Amino acid sequence: MPKTRKRILTGDRPTGSLHLGHYVGSLKNRVKLQDEYESYIIIADVQALTTHWEKGESLYQSVMQIASDYLAAGLDPNKVTIFIQSMIPEIHELTMYFSMFTSVNVLRHNPTIKTEAAQHGFSEITYGFLGYPVSQAADITIFKADLVPVGEDQIPHIEFARKIVRRFNELYAPVLVEPQAMVGEVPRLIGLDGQAKMSKSLNNAIYLCDSPEEVNKKVWNAVTDPARIHKNDPGHPEVCTVFAYHQIFNPQEVSAIEIDCRQGNIGCVACKKNLAHKINQLLAPMHERRQKYSPDDIKDILREGTLRAHAVAKETMEEVREAMKIAYFK
Amino acid sequence: MPKTRKRILTGDRPTGSLHLGHYVGSLKNRVKLQDEYESYIIIADVQALTTHWEKGESLYQSVMQIASDYLAAGLDPNKVTIFIQSMIPEIHELTMYFSMFTSVNVLRHNPTIKTEAAQHGFSEITYGFLGYPVSQAADITIFKADLVPVGEDQIPHIEFARKIVRRFNELYAPVLVEPQAMVGEVPRLIGLDGQAKMSKSLNNAIYLCDSPEEVNKKVWNAVTDPARIHKNDPGHPEVCTVFAYHQIFNPQEVSAIEIDCRQGNIGCVACKKNLAHKINQLLAPMHERRQKYSPDDIKDILREGTLRAHAVAKETMEEVREAMKIAYFK
Repeated sequence: MPKTRKRILTGDRPTGSLHLGHYVGSLKNRVKLQDEYESYIIIADVQALTTHWEKGESLYQSVMQIASDYLAAGLDPNKVTIFIQSMIPEIHELTMYFSMFTSVNVLRHNPTIKTEAAQHGFSEITYGFLGYPVSQAADITIFKADLVPVGEDQIPHIEFARKIVRRFNELYAPVLVEPQAMVGEVPRLIGLDGQAKMSKSLNNAIYLCDSPEEVNKKVWNAVTDPARIHKNDPGHPEVCTVFAYHQIFNPQEVSAIEIDCRQGNIGCVACKKNLAHKINQLLAPMHERRQKYSPDDIKDILREGTLRAHAVAKETMEEVREAMKIAYFK
Repeated sequence: MPKTRKRILTGDRPTGSLHLGHYVGSLKNRVKLQDEYESYIIIADVQALTTHWEKGESLYQSVMQIASDYLAAGLDPNKVTIFIQSMIPEIHELTMYFSMFTSVNVLRHNPTIKTEAAQHGFSEITYGFLGYPVSQAADITIFKADLVPVGEDQIPHIEFARKIVRRFNELYAPVLVEPQAMVGEVPRLIGLDGQAKMSKSLNNAIYLCDSPEEVNKKVWNAVTDPARIHKNDPGHPEVCTVFAYHQIFNPQEVSAIEIDCRQGNIGCVACKKNLAHKINQLLAPMHERRQKYSPDDIKDILREGTLRAHAVAKETMEEVREAMKIAYFK
């Protein structure tokens, strides 16, 4: 099938519910991109095993959860192809072929691998974890993605995938597409507790599935300027979590709020109520969309997306086998 | 399908024609085992890429050659299942899952990996090469092989596979079979030049497909006792390649030959003619059997064997996915 539009590949490891950090960092952008590009969205459950392999139990649930979050956020199954990595064994096949010309030392010196291993507190890294950039290169290239939306910090991974493609195409035949990084601003949302990152493991997140009451409660407990005791004390928005969220979720009022806060004209209670309201306004249509899909609908969407993705992956692997001259039964 | 007989898995990397060293070391035994066991014979073309990845060109030819050698040696396609590794992507899938709980350090300190890397003169090892014991564990376990015929030096690989199976069965559910090493005597054949090993790369081999004339010529040029100049000089069979071959291919006469040689009663010319005759007697029925199979027959045999093996692999992978709770669309 000839591609009429450029193809992008994005996705996530299913490791829990998606939160506002995910929305602001990538999901919002994906919803925008779905009209312009042919979008493949991978639920990277096998890659989740590189860091969560002992948690097989909840993988099914996490996959269903993330698919539900995608649909709630506005990804339209008629526009995008959402699929499950583990249901497409050809990805592992391509990973295997890539691994034949990928140096262990290059992987060991990959700064992201090192950083992540430290983050996860791995004393020993597994073979699967060491190789995840190879597997990621297969994810991207088996779908012949032209573009991969990433933040600055992910550029090395795309560069790595590009090198693998060039190597493969030189060695065998030019059947794979060199992906481009589609570098956009990836705003990072701080946590409710003021920590640098909103994250499930830090327990400082507002989830896309949080009810209005939960949002109100979480925002109520968000960390604000500790120097501000009384309503009329002049505030320091630059150290206030609530203000950081206003910057993102309430751009219309943020300038006025900054002035009011610095002058002590607005109290934290009112300011928080306002923010909670804005966040709930953002989440309301998501809750509505989420209601539209039953668990069976979600399963059907995943099944269909996976079928579509599988067809593309099979086609690429046939070309790969032809290129490598191992299409024995042709 | 319930297994009625114990299942064994054996096979080779297709890296060229098989020679007498292969026959003596494993092939002869496989022919014997095919009547007693359910035999799966893997042509490990993907694994061949771990050491020969730049030679994709000839992989197809090597696979056809080795299959032809198998049939010539007496493996009966009605008794054994001969299949091509790369046509069974589920093997890579299982490899991927195994790699999630396999430590990089354990692989790096694997003595066989170290030795082989040195043998191949690798200055840098690839990710694929480092992981081949994991892939081999998948080869064995995806077919639920009970037994793997190996020489002493391969026992660590089987031990490694057993550990992986135990780990998997503990982590998820006991669906995989712990393979046993079937340790037999694996006679090693020296090369025609007297080097420790008959090997294609040393150019000191007699191939199963060599014609009688080629065998005569090769044996004629085999290295004998250098101290023996004249026919009546007393010989030293312990340093003579031809004598080493008599021990294996001419057991009936070997004692008499040893005495005659030490006493200078038999000349090297007669001794070599005798050996070449014995080897040609061994190869004659192989040539005959080889004639029976056209390239199309061989392709059919491989296709059918691969189909059978694929069915077993798919079945195991379904169980694996169920055990890991990632059988999403069940």
